[in-house]
Amino acid sequence: MHTKFYSDSQHRQTDHALQSRAADKVGLPAGTLIHIGAKHQSECKISAIQYSVETLIYHEISSISDLQSLQNNELITWVNLDGLSNIDIVERIGHQLNIHPLVLEDILSTHQSPKLEEYENFLYLVIKGISLDQNKIFSLQYEQISILLLANYVITFKEKSDTTFDPVYHYLQNRSGRLRLKGSDYLAYVILDTIVDEYFVVEDSLDDVIDSLEDNILLNSNKEILQTIQQIRRSLISMKRNISPLRELLAAIQHIDTPLLQEKTLRYFGDVYDHVLRVNDSLESYRERISAMHDIYLSSISNKMNETIKILTIFATIFIPLTFIAGIYGMNFEYMPELKWRWAYPALWVIFILVSIGLLRAYSEIQRSDTRCQVRIPV
Amino acid sequence: MHTKFYSDSQHRQTDHALQSRAADKVGLPAGTLIHIGAKHQSECKISAIQYSVETLIYHEISSISDLQSLQNNELITWVNLDGLSNIDIVERIGHQLNIHPLVLEDILSTHQSPKLEEYENFLYLVIKGISLDQNKIFSLQYEQISILLLANYVITFKEKSDTTFDPVYHYLQNRSGRLRLKGSDYLAYVILDTIVDEYFVVEDSLDDVIDSLEDNILLNSNKEILQTIQQIRRSLISMKRNISPLRELLAAIQHIDTPLLQEKTLRYFGDVYDHVLRVNDSLESYRERISAMHDIYLSSISNKMNETIKILTIFATIFIPLTFIAGIYGMNFEYMPELKWRWAYPALWVIFILVSIGLLRAYSEIQRSDTRCQVRIPV
Amino acid sequence: MHTKFYSDSQHRQTDHALQSRAADKVGLPAGTLIHIGAKHQSECKISAIQYSVETLIYHEISSISDLQSLQNNELITWVNLDGLSNIDIVERIGHQLNIHPLVLEDILSTHQSPKLEEYENFLYLVIKGISLDQNKIFSLQYEQISILLLANYVITFKEKSDTTFDPVYHYLQNRSGRLRLKGSDYLAYVILDTIVDEYFVVEDSLDDVIDSLEDNILLNSNKEILQTIQQIRRSLISMKRNISPLRELLAAIQHIDTPLLQEKTLRYFGDVYDHVLRVNDSLESYRERISAMHDIYLSSISNKMNETIKILTIFATIFIPLTFIAGIYGMNFEYMPELKWRWAYPALWVIFILVSIGLLRAYSEIQRSDTRCQVRIPV
Amino acid sequence: MHTKFYSDSQHRQTDHALQSRAADKVGLPAGTLIHIGAKHQSECKISAIQYSVETLIYHEISSISDLQSLQNNELITWVNLDGLSNIDIVERIGHQLNIHPLVLEDILSTHQSPKLEEYENFLYLVIKGISLDQNKIFSLQYEQISILLLANYVITFKEKSDTTFDPVYHYLQNRSGRLRLKGSDYLAYVILDTIVDEYFVVEDSLDDVIDSLEDNILLNSNKEILQTIQQIRRSLISMKRNISPLRELLAAIQHIDTPLLQEKTLRYFGDVYDHVLRVNDSLESYRERISAMHDIYLSSISNKMNETIKILTIFATIFIPLTFIAGIYGMNFEYMPELKWRWAYPALWVIFILVSIGLLRAYSEIQRSDTRCQVRIPV
Amino acid sequence: MHTKFYSDSQHRQTDHALQSRAADKVGLPAGTLIHIGAKHQSECKISAIQYSVETLIYHEISSISDLQSLQNNELITWVNLDGLSNIDIVERIGHQLNIHPLVLEDILSTHQSPKLEEYENFLYLVIKGISLDQNKIFSLQYEQISILLLANYVITFKEKSDTTFDPVYHYLQNRSGRLRLKGSDYLAYVILDTIVDEYFVVEDSLDDVIDSLEDNILLNSNKEILQTIQQIRRSLISMKRNISPLRELLAAIQHIDTPLLQEKTLRYFGDVYDHVLRVNDSLESYRERISAMHDIYLSSISNKMNETIKILTIFATIFIPLTFIAGIYGMNFEYMPELKWRWAYPALWVIFILVSIGLLRAYSEIQRSDTRCQVRIPV
Repeated sequence: MHTKFYSDSQHRQTDHALQSRAADKVGLPAGTLIHIGAKHQSECKISAIQYSVETLIYHEISSISDLQSLQNNELITWVNLDGLSNIDIVERIGHQLNIHPLVLEDILSTHQSPKLEEYENFLYLVIKGISLDQNKIFSLQYEQISILLLANYVITFKEKSDTTFDPVYHYLQNRSGRLRLKGSDYLAYVILDTIVDEYFVVEDSLDDVIDSLEDNILLNSNKEILQTIQQIRRSLISMKRNISPLRELLAAIQHIDTPLLQEKTLRYFGDVYDHVLRVNDSLESYRERISAMHDIYLSSISNKMNETIKILTIFATIFIPLTFIAGIYGMNFEYMPELKWRWAYPALWVIFILVSIGLLRAYSEIQRSDTRCQVRIPV
Repeated sequence: MHTKFYSDSQHRQTDHALQSRAADKVGLPAGTLIHIGAKHQSECKISAIQYSVETLIYHEISSISDLQSLQNNELITWVNLDGLSNIDIVERIGHQLNIHPLVLEDILSTHQSPKLEEYENFLYLVIKGISLDQNKIFSLQYEQISILLLANYVITFKEKSDTTFDPVYHYLQNRSGRLRLKGSDYLAYVILDTIVDEYFVVEDSLDDVIDSLEDNILLNSNKEILQTIQQIRRSLISMKRNISPLRELLAAIQHIDTPLLQEKTLRYFGDVYDHVLRVNDSLESYRERISAMHDIYLSSISNKMNETIKILTIFATIFIPLTFIAGIYGMNFEYMPELKWRWAYPALWVIFILVSIGLLRAYSEIQRSDTRCQVRIPV
Repeated sequence: MHTKFYSDSQHRQTDHALQSRAADKVGLPAGTLIHIGAKHQSECKISAIQYSVETLIYHEISSISDLQSLQNNELITWVNLDGLSNIDIVERIGHQLNIHPLVLEDILSTHQSPKLEEYENFLYLVIKGISLDQNKIFSLQYEQISILLLANYVITFKEKSDTTFDPVYHYLQNRSGRLRLKGSDYLAYVILDTIVDEYFVVEDSLDDVIDSLEDNILLNSNKEILQTIQQIRRSLISMKRNISPLRELLAAIQHIDTPLLQEKTLRYFGDVYDHVLRVNDSLESYRERISAMHDIYLSSISNKMNETIKILTIFATIFIPLTFIAGIYGMNFEYMPELKWRWAYPALWVIFILVSIGLLRAYSEIQRSDTRCQVRIPV
Repeated sequence: MHTKFYSDSQHRQTDHALQSRAADKVGLPAGTLIHIGAKHQSECKISAIQYSVETLIYHEISSISDLQSLQNNELITWVNLDGLSNIDIVERIGHQLNIHPLVLEDILSTHQSPKLEEYENFLYLVIKGISLDQNKIFSLQYEQISILLLANYVITFKEKSDTTFDPVYHYLQNRSGRLRLKGSDYLAYVILDTIVDEYFVVEDSLDDVIDSLEDNILLNSNKEILQTIQQIRRSLISMKRNISPLRELLAAIQHIDTPLLQEKTLRYFGDVYDHVLRVNDSLESYRERISAMHDIYLSSISNKMNETIKILTIFATIFIPLTFIAGIYGMNFEYMPELKWRWAYPALWVIFILVSIGLLRAYSEIQRSDTRCQVRIPV
Repeated sequence: MHTKFYSDSQHRQTDHALQSRAADKVGLPAGTLIHIGAKHQSECKISAIQYSVETLIYHEISSISDLQSLQNNELITWVNLDGLSNIDIVERIGHQLNIHPLVLEDILSTHQSPKLEEYENFLYLVIKGISLDQNKIFSLQYEQISILLLANYVITFKEKSDTTFDPVYHYLQNRSGRLRLKGSDYLAYVILDTIVDEYFVVEDSLDDVIDSLEDNILLNSNKEILQTIQQIRRSLISMKRNISPLRELLAAIQHIDTPLLQEKTLRYFGDVYDHVLRVNDSLESYRERISAMHDIYLSSISNKMNETIKILTIFATIFIPLTFIAGIYGMNFEYMPELKWRWAYPALWVIFILVSIGLLRAYSEIQRSDTRCQVRIPV
């Protein structure tokens, strides 16, 4: 029973219309459902899994009525929806499960910050999946994932179809795993944990880039380094914006008094909280390192400029006076007695050499007095 | 019954008097009503709408007595006043509805920060409308909007007549919309939401400018970029000042214990709160990006200066010694044996060329040792 | 009954002694009353006003006994003391009204930060009056004002005699004004409000200076601008130090449980609180703007330096090689065949011109590649 | 009974596999035990100590069954495990003592931040041991130490075998020491205290390096200094990340209501808290000092560049005009009357000297006007 | 009964051993009493004062038994110990008064941050005395002062013998002073107040240095200024570290529920709290001013460099082309028609002059366009 929901109106969109704009909804009355955010031109794909310790059933859903037939209180049901272009589907799912209209609006608007909202019959969680764009150098892709946790029921909404949830599917197949033994709240934890684990992949990649930058920054100071620094800064700023609200969210989960979350599962959510804290700390220290690196970069360029100017100054201050002296004896005055002296020319060479040596010595003297007091780093 | 209130005294104002000054009231006893802020030379225009699920009546008000006749507890009444130059009107509205004199002062003084005040019979909300000035490049216009929420009654005061509230009017015409079904608190929410939605338009525009700047900053480092950076910084500072107090205001609304706000409507105000949080986060990340860009700009200029000085140094250190040598053999000493040698001149050319090559090689050697250790960015 | 209290000992002070020092009291046992702070060589002047709705009596006080005779529970009494050099007076007032010795010490020490202290029989408020020094460019003058609020009694202590309180005197003459109708707590509010209103004058003045700086910083980068930036920074730092504690103070007033403050008056103190918040926000945004401006200034100088060096480089790299070529044919070798060629000289001119054009083209090529990617600012 | 647990699978690891990656576990279902972190190729070594006031027994453990036989409620047992490569051992210890699976995962993952977790039957503490790498200049090594505190039982897990715990072993041998008199909570305190004391060694070393840098930064501004600054910044950032969470952890310990911690021992944990606060304050002030030093460095380079350019300018502006004059009289025009004057050549020398003196005076004049206003530092 | 406690072991210390190290205790079991910190080679001197309103007895203590004989509940006893080298004495005092061993350790370790600890029978306060080193320019000296407040008993431990407590001694002699009338808690306040008052002396001195720097920074930009800036920064960082914890400490004192502190004395501690707040605010504003000054310094150097380069550019761009022209007519080609023209030489002079004037005008044109838009600072 696999059917695809073609949302024809979306297919006619021009490239311009694909651009994501936070303000798309301005001017529309609040309460109108539209999809705000980048339109990933994928079709909308729904799949459902039902499981208990003994059972594991995988459905590919083609119509809402298929969904309705899944109602089963003895199994835990997980419905996943990839692609948000078909507003109708989302609205009907919302209607069926009695979801507050504001939540449906938020699911469709992919500019949300991570947040947690408690409703009478369900918990609503928004979180950002982050993945590396394999084609570009350190470029990040974000995907909004909405999680609705009901009793025995979890629904997830993703912007596009990708491999983010594969570890969860894999884990579900493990019959003796903790996941199969526990309730829907534990499933929500595993999904959350899987998304947060992806952050560490990005973090490791960042770590490599920053380490490599730190090792090279003093040797190298070309434009490319500056560009890489800028790119990482942008990535850090956007990551911070998308990850940091998770901290409060996961702290809040611990204090929610709801029958949807079992006391025992909270310990696991606390573990995700620790991971998020760790990612946040890392981001903060990356930010400090990048900022420090920028300072180093600036100092390093100033240093090099200083070196270049020193070379120029040494050459110029030595040869400009000499050229002047040579210029004097190139003058055509009739009465210049020196011109007729027998040893004038060799004597002038001696002067040239002495002046050069004198100036060079003066420089090396200045240089030495500067570096005389060596830094003695103990340890 | 459309009449215009001409406030003649305002019309005689010179341009100087139009300048907005926070201190205009200094020296006047507290409690004196005057209009503080930029005087938009518009007349004062009042309109009123009364509605219930079935009814929707639009009145254009010409006198206070018209207002008094609107008293009707079965309909929800929304009175909007565009233009604050007619102090008399504001005072009489205040008197009629029993508004605290400090509130009237605040409505007329357009230098308020966003704030929320709870009085016995009404809630008082100040918020800033922000719009883009279409004529200049990224220039913002602010407008103070005061909202008084009473039972079945909402009054809004705006500095000038513009299209800010058009989406609300539009929404009201939708008979089956949630707005027509709900009370005056929901109207206040819709008005607030409409104003906050405008922020996203400004944010999108900012986003475009900053993205474009980030892409070009490394290629370009002229004065115009510096000017754009400065302008955006100013805009961000003023936006932050006008938007950030909203956060606390909307958090406070959730905890006010007043019959004016229904439990169910609070969820909607919470939604506006989320939007404001999002705008605030965006502003903060824009600030960081602009600041990072400024650093990049400075580094980029230093980089270029370094390049320029390098060129100067290479030219100068090669040609100054050569010129000196040429100068030597331009001297007119009688006894310069080299001058008479047969191959002296071609030999000198050889020397010229060798010295040039030697120095160029020395430079490229230095250059190479600098960039030998290439940044190897993994990923 | 107007008498002046000459404090002769103060008159003999040298200029050095006039300097204000925070540590003047070090070494003296705690509890010794001395005047710490700049000594304004004014005499100590006391005035008293008594009023009710019907009555308004103005006394000029010459001795403590005059003060004692003012005791009257049906009128509200406001005693103002200009000039703190006469310690004796302050001590005797304190004794008469049963003021805690630490408060008397604080009144005389004009290095206090704004603060609020609650005692059994009175409230003690310290606040800083700020005014512009008309003679210098953006220079501020601070004055410590102590306010003691008792039942039906307000005493204010000012460092010097100036026009700060004129609006209050003026307001008192308005028989039907709210001030005459209310108690001593309202008088304290009006005094506070008057002092805070002065801040807006300073703020407006700052605004003008900073706006003008922002408009000119990119055109101009001389020392004077740097000096103005530095001066504003110093002013902002000192203003922040003197104003920001007011915020907490006025928030604290709302929560003090004392019969001295009526419930209804608190709303007015809340209004002053809003004003102080506004001033604080302004100071913060001025600080950010000045800091941004400093960055712009530095970038702007770097930009200019870059331009200057570019000019130098272009001139030098074009003419130094040409001069070298001219130098070659100025050599006096006997065997230089070119010297005898018929078209050598015009040919050399052609070379000169070609080399110049070639180098200039190379430069403009580099230049063009730099600015090829113009910033396309949308909007 | 000393046996070594060879974990053969680990020995086959390539160097690449040794690299530590936070994301190693991504894709594995939560709840799978693997060792995440740098693999120190050491074997896994277990030792156990049992003591009371009279007794002190030292066991070297070779198998889990040895551990089981240690159960003894009258002695306090401390089991220490060096090296985490043998996952099996950790799992079996966990099973034996009824440790929550998440804790076992955390013990094996050495990317934890310091944290404290309270379980029903035990307290779980993660802390980072920091030591100086003796071979490199200011390079730090981190080791994750997990402490499990049970009633009469302490287990510690360390990444590698080193001398960190030697002071504890030494202290245990002191029969009359407080340690032998008190419970397992006091042992945990002594272990914690020993680890934190190591921080002071690192801090002292940092202090020496920074002091030496501060003394030399103005004299010296070569690349090595920049490199040292960068290295210290990196160390400070990583130390902060590993130490600062300890603060909250130790504050939290004071408020845990558990029979595992006696009231009297809390005072000692409070002492460690003070030490950690002190280290944190030091790190913060080091950060400020390094940041200030970087500013000084940049200023210092600019200063030097300025000096160099001044020298260049003085030489160039004096000799370039002189060379021009000499160039004029090197021209070969037929009609240059000066060339034939008797005193032209000496006169020109006079001009040369006068021009030089004039320009030098002009410079020293500018110089003097710059430094005329000496800084008069009082004190 | 005056005896000196010679701690012979200390006298044999080499200079190296005198260096203060935070980590001296590492490796020693916790609970071992040793003196950590700089060893001031002074002997350990104990003095005791006992007083009531009528009595004032001064004892110079030579042995612990002398101390024991002082027990007297009707007098207030203040024991002061100068110099911490004699560990034995401290231990015996501790034993006699039943002081917790951790407190004794802290008294002897002079690397403590200010802190307050409440024990059953006493309060323990650590505070830092700060004084100016008269011999060097703005160099600070710190001294750790421990205060133990018991009922009718105050013990103070100081690192060295100096004049810090002289004002307290002086105040005690004033028979009618408040100090003689009140309890030991008031004595503790007076001691605290005396130490904090010393901070103002340092602050005044800082103020003078910073004011003087701010006035001169734009005129002067030599290395000495940079050095002074750096020194002040270091001082501010160390002061902040030693003073800022006092704030929390004195806030905490207000909320301690102990019979050792009377309700009435708390008001006085609140006064010290205000002073500490003031010092902290000052430090913060000094920090901002120094940081601003550093920016100014950097801008000022850039400005000067720009000026210097401008001079160089003007000279070079004028004279280099002229020299080139002169070089052309210094060439020895046979066929250079201009050389034979009658007015060629004067004509060339005209060209020289015109070119110079032209270039100078071009420069002044550029200059003028830069400064055309003068900053019009209103006010």
